[in-house]
Amino acid sequence: MDTRRLAEFVVAHKAAALPATVRHEAARALLNWVGCAVGASQHETVKRALAALNEFSGPRVASILGRHERVDIFQAALFNGTTAHTFDFDDTHLKTVIHPSAPVLPAILALAEHMHVSGRDFLHAFVLGVETECRIGKAILPNHYDVGWHITATAGVFGAAVAAGRLLKLNARQMVWALGIAATHACGIRETFGSMAKPLHPGIAARNGLMAALLAKKNVGPEQGIEGRRGFAAVLSTKFDPAAITEGLGKSWELLSNSYKPYACGVVIHPAIDGCIQLRDERGLKLEDIARIDLKVHPLVLELTGKREPASGLEGKFSVFHSCAAAILLGEGGESAYSDAIVRKPAVVRLRDQVSAVAERGLMEDQVRIRMTLKDGRVLEKFIEHCVGSIDNPMSDADLEAKFRAQCKGLLPAAQVGKLIGLCWGMGALKNASEIARAAVPAPAKTKRNATRAKKK
Amino acid sequence: MDTRRLAEFVVAHKAAALPATVRHEAARALLNWVGCAVGASQHETVKRALAALNEFSGPRVASILGRHERVDIFQAALFNGTTAHTFDFDDTHLKTVIHPSAPVLPAILALAEHMHVSGRDFLHAFVLGVETECRIGKAILPNHYDVGWHITATAGVFGAAVAAGRLLKLNARQMVWALGIAATHACGIRETFGSMAKPLHPGIAARNGLMAALLAKKNVGPEQGIEGRRGFAAVLSTKFDPAAITEGLGKSWELLSNSYKPYACGVVIHPAIDGCIQLRDERGLKLEDIARIDLKVHPLVLELTGKREPASGLEGKFSVFHSCAAAILLGEGGESAYSDAIVRKPAVVRLRDQVSAVAERGLMEDQVRIRMTLKDGRVLEKFIEHCVGSIDNPMSDADLEAKFRAQCKGLLPAAQVGKLIGLCWGMGALKNASEIARAAVPAPAKTKRNATRAKKK
Repeated sequence: MDTRRLAEFVVAHKAAALPATVRHEAARALLNWVGCAVGASQHETVKRALAALNEFSGPRVASILGRHERVDIFQAALFNGTTAHTFDFDDTHLKTVIHPSAPVLPAILALAEHMHVSGRDFLHAFVLGVETECRIGKAILPNHYDVGWHITATAGVFGAAVAAGRLLKLNARQMVWALGIAATHACGIRETFGSMAKPLHPGIAARNGLMAALLAKKNVGPEQGIEGRRGFAAVLSTKFDPAAITEGLGKSWELLSNSYKPYACGVVIHPAIDGCIQLRDERGLKLEDIARIDLKVHPLVLELTGKREPASGLEGKFSVFHSCAAAILLGEGGESAYSDAIVRKPAVVRLRDQVSAVAERGLMEDQVRIRMTLKDGRVLEKFIEHCVGSIDNPMSDADLEAKFRAQCKGLLPAAQVGKLIGLCWGMGALKNASEIARAAVPAPAKTKRNATRAKKK
Repeated sequence: MDTRRLAEFVVAHKAAALPATVRHEAARALLNWVGCAVGASQHETVKRALAALNEFSGPRVASILGRHERVDIFQAALFNGTTAHTFDFDDTHLKTVIHPSAPVLPAILALAEHMHVSGRDFLHAFVLGVETECRIGKAILPNHYDVGWHITATAGVFGAAVAAGRLLKLNARQMVWALGIAATHACGIRETFGSMAKPLHPGIAARNGLMAALLAKKNVGPEQGIEGRRGFAAVLSTKFDPAAITEGLGKSWELLSNSYKPYACGVVIHPAIDGCIQLRDERGLKLEDIARIDLKVHPLVLELTGKREPASGLEGKFSVFHSCAAAILLGEGGESAYSDAIVRKPAVVRLRDQVSAVAERGLMEDQVRIRMTLKDGRVLEKFIEHCVGSIDNPMSDADLEAKFRAQCKGLLPAAQVGKLIGLCWGMGALKNASEIARAAVPAPAKTKRNATRAKKK
């Protein structure tokens, strides 16, 4: 019985048995996720969701990263789950396209504000949650995603349930139940993509997973929620490979296949942005120096991100042309490259219209060939073999810190950001994991200025 | 666009345009549902769920029918949704096997305790919610249920969202969004059947539908949540008949196809119980008068309820043999016929072992042929053409009242039960719909005795 074997594994595994590489990757994922949560903390999506739900909050013990409101643990799971996924800038487990941190971290961070959890136990529960959701994802792919499920939500609820269940010290039977309740809570369809309902998904998965674990602790739940005849796998997929869930448990770790986005847009544009930034920085180029940019790209680039005349920041994320122009202007591809203002800036539009992209067979998804013609007649060329953030060229710890600083800019003071980075790296040694949550909230004095700032927007 | 047409209909429909038959059926459904909720209010499932979640409740403005705890509106939706479905004794829309009241009433009853809602608006919203969920159910059946979805939950969330959205006065665009958020919240798999996670489903649907409406009110949501390429219908079913959703809206009413269970067990056993009770009452029979009972039944009876030696009350519900014996003993088939004690009572076991059942082609699901042999040698025969509770022989208003009284027995004092019945019938004229909720809660003086009673169990 697969649910049972998985449950026994996550209940029995010892934190000391985690390889150092996995522990370090957990800290990297945490740092990246906290930055994403703070970065989108003032977005309209979370504001509207808060306006709808805040008055119904229970005991306000938990933080919304980057905001001053305090809410109950379910709302904290929901809102932090939402913000961190809002810019689609969070981590990706490329084998499953699950965003592994998205549903798991908000669930256990909320729980850590409700009960005492050490940093070590927190990271351990996180790793086990990621392992669970990614393995379940692998067992049902590709059919499950293809039919239209948002796998970060549907597989993610298991990750949240297991991680929360581990912190609640469920026994193996209760962990089976937690997985079963998670199974009957799995939801989230891809029709929502492009709407504000999409970033809610990891939040809903986090909230539901947390609830599943709390209910299981009181002995509510079904058996065989995953593999049963009318269980999760049979109902939500036409393909199920149970071995993917249990094979080599504790020997391989899915978190080691995690990747982080350096740029706040579809991952297929990343090589082009990477190459433009490298040429810009190597030659000290400015927008007005460039006559045209010709790209050879993987075919998916045109299919997914071929928008010629993006009208808004959000559309800019689906335009390889805009992305290149913005990368030259700013030297980066963070959320700031996708504001409405940048997308409409005349100088950016001018260069954007001089960018061409042609598909070239044989190029991989993390590759690009760039030919840049300058106004002085020079022609520069650049081949990106593995763009930054790909598995073969991962973002360094320093890259992640720089991304974090860029995301927190204007939202938290630099000194606080520095402290928060330190806390993320040091999570494994923290006495109390919830210190991270408190450290990611604007200080009371800051709150007022943030409010004014938000209004001016 | 179907979501849009449905949304426009539910937003624009006038309460005055509801036929009197539909209004009366709404009151009948309400009465039946309140009785089910009170009846299971002391069940272990809701006790465990409360133990898990109660401490996280927000503003305690809402009631749990039959209990003294007050909780926030989401928890009230969850818990009342759970109790009323616990005994599987609630109403059934036979065309879709949706339990129509289960997800809709708890959502809007909770809302009515949060904001002012008249009885008339309450019933109107309920009818529109039922119309929505049943039509969506028809559009995706049978494939959706066959693969393993619990349709009361998956279609029910739309009913809850529409009913709550109507009370929140959503405009048509917001109603589309509420339906879209509901679509991405649809969950509940049949693997949970037989576990405590099953009755949670309508509660979860009620809570999620309520949240969908509140979020939509603040302008969050996707378009085309139902009919889009990656929408609810495409993702959760291999069959979709959009016309079933929109054809004849406002002309036919699904609530008129609602049915109510006189007996607390699978609907296929009902004809046999019906016949046994009739023979018992006509002849004044006792258990010890009967030598044997031979049944000719619809084939589904043996397939679904052929358990020869049920060991517990829950298993008794799946035994046509036990059900006949208990019907002779008690003269009814309510929850009391399915206690562990009755199932194990030696005299009941003795007669149960003398009950036979053979499938007969040509018998309908609501029919049975009974041949009862008495110890004095007499042979009695009875053909049930349409059992009580079937579409062709519905429970009368008086039947529903008697069922209600039996369910509330020992939980609420008789005078309060009488008053509550009056309130249900008079809901359409109530100034404040939430009066029903307050009237269904044990008085403070009663609470202590209930607690003692519960302990003694």
